Amino acid sequence: MPPLLTPDLAGRFPPRRKYLVGVSGGRDSVALFHALREAGFRSLVVCHLDHRLRGRASTEDARFVEKLAAAGSCACEIGRVDVRELARQSRQSLETAAREARYQFFAEMARKHRCQRLFLAHHADDQVETVLHRLCRGTGLGGLGGMQEISHRGKLALLRPLLAVWREEIDAYIAAHGLAWREDATNVTADHSMRNRWRHELIPSLREALGRDPRAAILRLADLARADDAALESWLEREWPAATGGETGAAVALRSAILLGWPVALQRRALHRWLAEAGVPGVDFQLVESLRAILPPTAVPARINLPGGRHVRRRAGRIFLE
Amino acid sequence: MPPLLTPDLAGRFPPRRKYLVGVSGGRDSVALFHALREAGFRSLVVCHLDHRLRGRASTEDARFVEKLAAAGSCACEIGRVDVRELARQSRQSLETAAREARYQFFAEMARKHRCQRLFLAHHADDQVETVLHRLCRGTGLGGLGGMQEISHRGKLALLRPLLAVWREEIDAYIAAHGLAWREDATNVTADHSMRNRWRHELIPSLREALGRDPRAAILRLADLARADDAALESWLEREWPAATGGETGAAVALRSAILLGWPVALQRRALHRWLAEAGVPGVDFQLVESLRAILPPTAVPARINLPGGRHVRRRAGRIFLE
Repeated sequence: MPPLLTPDLAGRFPPRRKYLVGVSGGRDSVALFHALREAGFRSLVVCHLDHRLRGRASTEDARFVEKLAAAGSCACEIGRVDVRELARQSRQSLETAAREARYQFFAEMARKHRCQRLFLAHHADDQVETVLHRLCRGTGLGGLGGMQEISHRGKLALLRPLLAVWREEIDAYIAAHGLAWREDATNVTADHSMRNRWRHELIPSLREALGRDPRAAILRLADLARADDAALESWLEREWPAATGGETGAAVALRSAILLGWPVALQRRALHRWLAEAGVPGVDFQLVESLRAILPPTAVPARINLPGGRHVRRRAGRIFLE
Repeated sequence: MPPLLTPDLAGRFPPRRKYLVGVSGGRDSVALFHALREAGFRSLVVCHLDHRLRGRASTEDARFVEKLAAAGSCACEIGRVDVRELARQSRQSLETAAREARYQFFAEMARKHRCQRLFLAHHADDQVETVLHRLCRGTGLGGLGGMQEISHRGKLALLRPLLAVWREEIDAYIAAHGLAWREDATNVTADHSMRNRWRHELIPSLREALGRDPRAAILRLADLARADDAALESWLEREWPAATGGETGAAVALRSAILLGWPVALQRRALHRWLAEAGVPGVDFQLVESLRAILPPTAVPARINLPGGRHVRRRAGRIFLE
């Protein structure tokens, strides 16, 4: 039985340090918690948010996680929030409200325990489903890369050591170690019900139609996309001072002739960054393309309106946000 | 009824020049041929390859196309090939054999008519299906971009003016102009049967599960991916002389320290290009990653074997293909 965590994990995340770990009580997070303990991680704070979406079963999930942490001699934090009520009040989807509540809880626990590192149990199948879902809802190269092994949300570092591990491997690990877990502990939101459709309907349909499993190809594409995206971002970083003439701050003027000399992909990224840094709301592909259209010195009109009442104007070879 | 071809088409492809146009007799190519004639293209050579896969119906398709060309006062070339026999002899799939036979026929007609420009009727739904299919079979950013509006196959320029037009728009055009076309004229290969599954099963399943049509998002991603890919290729082009020290030719040595200073995405593209230009067969992601692993000066071993009996060796800060 190969270990769930690759041997190089300890190099990147030293086991002697303290970490939070998100544990729903479902199969994936139970396996992650067990594997971290096996790999010598001793100072783990188990964090569980009770979403109160499944009545008494939710309470039992929380109790299960408490016992799991106690058996591993780990600290345990249980949060409780009525996600359905929260979604109603904030007029968010259940999915969004649950995610926001979870990350708010994790951020509080990070402050309380003075530990800004959180392990999460997202695995390769989650990644494939994320990529397919974003693909169908609209994304660029950045989104196509899916989740990152290390990402940040505010000060909190999200660590996903299982991102290259398939669900079958987690199942085998659970079976090999005879681990108990709570069925449906994570099935709390619309997000999960969409995941279930990808998992049980859509991906199997693709596999059957293609005569092969598409998952590995999609996972690899996500890896390639992340690297391509990082390369383009680093290129933009290098060229940015030429576009601003070395000025810094939000909404400095950009030199349109410089931008026009760049590849289209870099123009798009530069304008996206420029608008986003200036706090323009609703920056999307269409807006960036409208802005690209006013760059040429002969383009008429030399002005476009932005959401939120502001506008961009081209004057004397520069574009200004006003 | 909006025109099928965008007004800027005539700027890129002047209507007074001569063009070949591939016409299967199916809905898409019949609409394309009609729209080109409406847009003032007079010197069109209609090219149709009879694949002989549907018996008498194939012959009737060819006759239909001949009449269509004659009614438009256009030259018409009908080729005939037994694709099933060809696939058996060449041990290729029906799909591959049919495609090769088609492009060989088009290349012959291009020579005969001294015209290296061929219009094809691929549309936005074909593009979406191509992208999804490549995604599931394995691709990088290049493949994810799908078909290009202008691409080349040998000397022949393939022009796809309908790549942003949805099938519904073609249907509406066909209905508005009361055009006749041959059902199933293009349903000749496994390629088409796979397309049908995407079209009639998989994409509708995605739409139903997501509660929205995923096609526009996928088409836009393909556009973004093509631009991102072009940007990275132009970057590689610019940096390439630094890696070779200005030497040219196949299999010049590459400076490993220079490559290591590049983003991973650029390293991958450089090594892929280097191996492909040297004629190394079967260059894939795994091979490129193995090669990346020997770049660091401390990497051991400093050599990897290649398919076809050759190998790459790192020596004195360079990698050599031997």
